[in-house]
Amino acid sequence: MALVVQKYGGTSVGTVEKIRNVARRVARTYDEGNDVIVVVSAMAGETDKLVGLANEMCEFPNEREYDVLVASGEQVSISLLSMCLQSMGYKAKSYLGWQIPIYTDSAHSTARIKEIRDGNIREDLRSGSIVVVAGFQGIDQDGNIATLGRGGSDTSAVAVAAALKADVCEIYTDVDGIYTTDPRMVSDATKVEKISYDEMLEMASLGAKVLQIRSVEFAKKYDVVIHVRSSFNDNQGTLVMKEDADMETVLVSGIAYNKNEAKISVLKVPDTPGIAAELFSPLSEANITVDMIIQNVSHDGLTDMTFTVPRTDFKKALKIVGESANKIGAEKVISNEAIAKVSIIGVGMRSHSGIASKMFSTLAGEGVNIQMISTSEIKVSCIIDDKYTELAVRVLHDAFELGQIEVKEEDI
Amino acid sequence: MALVVQKYGGTSVGTVEKIRNVARRVARTYDEGNDVIVVVSAMAGETDKLVGLANEMCEFPNEREYDVLVASGEQVSISLLSMCLQSMGYKAKSYLGWQIPIYTDSAHSTARIKEIRDGNIREDLRSGSIVVVAGFQGIDQDGNIATLGRGGSDTSAVAVAAALKADVCEIYTDVDGIYTTDPRMVSDATKVEKISYDEMLEMASLGAKVLQIRSVEFAKKYDVVIHVRSSFNDNQGTLVMKEDADMETVLVSGIAYNKNEAKISVLKVPDTPGIAAELFSPLSEANITVDMIIQNVSHDGLTDMTFTVPRTDFKKALKIVGESANKIGAEKVISNEAIAKVSIIGVGMRSHSGIASKMFSTLAGEGVNIQMISTSEIKVSCIIDDKYTELAVRVLHDAFELGQIEVKEEDI
Repeated sequence: MALVVQKYGGTSVGTVEKIRNVARRVARTYDEGNDVIVVVSAMAGETDKLVGLANEMCEFPNEREYDVLVASGEQVSISLLSMCLQSMGYKAKSYLGWQIPIYTDSAHSTARIKEIRDGNIREDLRSGSIVVVAGFQGIDQDGNIATLGRGGSDTSAVAVAAALKADVCEIYTDVDGIYTTDPRMVSDATKVEKISYDEMLEMASLGAKVLQIRSVEFAKKYDVVIHVRSSFNDNQGTLVMKEDADMETVLVSGIAYNKNEAKISVLKVPDTPGIAAELFSPLSEANITVDMIIQNVSHDGLTDMTFTVPRTDFKKALKIVGESANKIGAEKVISNEAIAKVSIIGVGMRSHSGIASKMFSTLAGEGVNIQMISTSEIKVSCIIDDKYTELAVRVLHDAFELGQIEVKEEDI
Repeated sequence: MALVVQKYGGTSVGTVEKIRNVARRVARTYDEGNDVIVVVSAMAGETDKLVGLANEMCEFPNEREYDVLVASGEQVSISLLSMCLQSMGYKAKSYLGWQIPIYTDSAHSTARIKEIRDGNIREDLRSGSIVVVAGFQGIDQDGNIATLGRGGSDTSAVAVAAALKADVCEIYTDVDGIYTTDPRMVSDATKVEKISYDEMLEMASLGAKVLQIRSVEFAKKYDVVIHVRSSFNDNQGTLVMKEDADMETVLVSGIAYNKNEAKISVLKVPDTPGIAAELFSPLSEANITVDMIIQNVSHDGLTDMTFTVPRTDFKKALKIVGESANKIGAEKVISNEAIAKVSIIGVGMRSHSGIASKMFSTLAGEGVNIQMISTSEIKVSCIIDDKYTELAVRVLHDAFELGQIEVKEEDI
C-alpha cells in the first residue's frame, strides 16, 4: 500500500462531468489499496473571473483582500469533488488551507509554504477517508489567507507529498507528460520517460508550462518524485526525479522555446564600475524580470549591454531604460520585439563536449542568425529572429535525435 | 459616536458598481464618526449558482461539503467590498466566519450561532478600521464550515450586533422598510415606522420575506434594535424593536398573506388518544412542516382533521397522509391546493376586542368564504380560496385603515 498524492488542474475539474471523471480516477487509485490525497485547483476559468472582478473593482486591489477573493475558487472544486466521492460510496473530506493548516509567509499572491501540520490529514487517512485539499492557498501566522501564485496548486501538491512522505506526487494535466519539445511545433516530439529536477527547472522557466517552477524546486529540496501525466488517459507519463545514471547518457533531453521576450540594447555605455547596477536596479524596482544579460568586451572604455525582458513589460522597460541610459551617458538604446529564445537542455551535456557548437552549426546550416548566446551547466540558449522559431526547434530536435528516443524505449 | 452594524443583501452587492455604492454608504457612516461593521451576503445569483452545481453533482450532496461550497459566495463579496473601501482611502479588513470566529452548532445548512469571539474585531475597530464580515457562515467546534440557512446573513448581522453591543443593526434591502401589506397588491400600503419583535415574527413567518425569522428571534432575545431600510435611498425605514406604548394604540399593524400552502383534510378519524401523533409524526419524519391544524368537536366518536403544508411538499404529504389515514381507519382524505392564508397582525389586538369579528365580517361582506381559522395573541389567520387573496388583502387593509397611517404620521 502506498500513499499517493494526486493533483488535478483547472482543466481537469472544469465542469461537473469532468470532476466526476476525476472522482472515478481517485476512487480507482483508492480501490487499488492506496491512501489517496487529492489536491485540486479552481475550475477552469474561475480564477480568471475572480481576477477580473478585482480589476474591475479598483486599479490596485489590496493584496490581502485579493487573496481572500481568488482563494474562493478552490473552495468550490474541493467541495464538489468530495460530495461526488461520497455519493459514490467513499469516505471523503475536503480541506481548505486554514483547516489543515498549511502555513505560509505573508507574501500575498506569491506566498511560500513554511509548514504543513499533517495531524488532521493523517487521522482521516487512517480512518479510510480520501482527503481532498484546496491547492494554491495557505494562511500566514496571523490567520490571513495567502495564495501561492499562478500554478501554485502544483506546489501545494508537492509540499503535501513532502510533508506526508508520499510515495509519489502525480500531477494530472491535459498533456501526457514532458515532451522533448512542443508537439504542436514538431510532430515527432516524443515523451520523456524521466527527467531530472534541474532539467525540468530549465524546461519550465523556458516556457514549457507544465509544472509551476517552484513546485520543482520544492520537489528537488525534499526529494519528492513527481509523475506528470494526463487526466484523460492511463498512459505512463514523465517522472521528474533525482538524476540517475541513465539520464547522463542522453546528451540533450529537450528543446524549449520562448516567444514572450523582447530585447533591449544600450549602446556605448561607459565601462565603469556600478554601471550595470544603475541600469538594472530601476527595472527590478519596477518588478520587471530581466532574463538574459550580455555584456561584451569594451572598446575605448565603452561597452554594449543587451538584455531581454518579458514582452508584456517591454514598453515600461524601454521607458525606464531610456531614462537610465541618459543618466549614465550611453549613446543610445535600440530594441527588438521580434525575437525568440531557443534552448537545448540536458544534464548529459555536462560530461560531453561539442553540444553547443553542434547547436550553433545546426542553426547556421539553416541560415538562422544567432543574436545572443547564454549558457549554463545544462543548457544553451540562443536568441534568434522569432520568425525562425519553428524552423530552429525542428532542426535542433532532429540534430539531437530526439524524435528517436521513444522508439529506443519501446525496443527495450 | 455609535457602533453601527450594517447588513447588505445579495441584491445590494450584486455587481461591482453596486458594491461601490455600498462602500460609499459605509464610508459616509464612518465619516459621521461611527464605528462600522458591515455584514454582506453573496452577490445576487451566486448562491443559486453554487446550489445548482451541487444538485448537478449528485442527488443528495453531503451536508458538510455543501456548506463548504455555498460559503464561498460571501468570500467573494467581502473581499471586493474591502478592497473597494481601501481604494477609497479607508482602512478595511474582511473576516470569514472562521477568522472571527463565529462558532455555531454542527447542524449544516441550518446551523445556529453559539458564540462570537469579538476580540479581533474590537481591535480592528479601535485601530480605526472598517470591519467587513461574511454573513451566513460560521464554524463548529471541530473547525467545519457551517451555514445558517437562506437569509442567514440577517442573523449573522444581528448576532454580531448583539455580541458587540452595537447601537443599531441596519438591514439594507431593496425595499424601504416593512409595509402594512404587500405594496404590489395594495397601492396605498404604507411603511410602518416601528414594529415589535413579535409582530415582525408573525409578519415574517406569514410570507413578508424581508428579514430571516431567526434574526428577529435573535434580536428579541438580545434586545438588538433592527433598522430595516433601503440601500437605494436615504429614507428612514422601519425600526424592529421592543414593544412600546405607541404600538399598543395601533390595533392592526399589517396584513400578511401566503399563497404557498395547500390544505389536506382527513375525514371521519376515530377520535381516540394518539391519533394526531399517528397522523403527524410521519410528516415530521419526512421533514414536512405542518402549519395550521384544525380539529373540530367529534360526532359519534369520529372527527375531521384539517391542516396545511407547504405547496412544494404537497404531493409527498398527500402520499404519507393517505397511508396513515388507512392505518388509523379514517374514512377518506380530501385536499385542495388552491388556497391562501390571509392574516391580520398587531400587538394592539391583545387589549382590544372585536378585531377578529371585524375581519370575518369584512371578508363576508365581499362574499369570501372562510375555510379555516386560526388565532394567536397577536394575529388572526384565515384560509380562503386563493383567487380571493388580493381582494381579501385589499378590503382588510381598508377596513383596518392601514392606508391612512402614513398620512397621520406626516400630520404630526
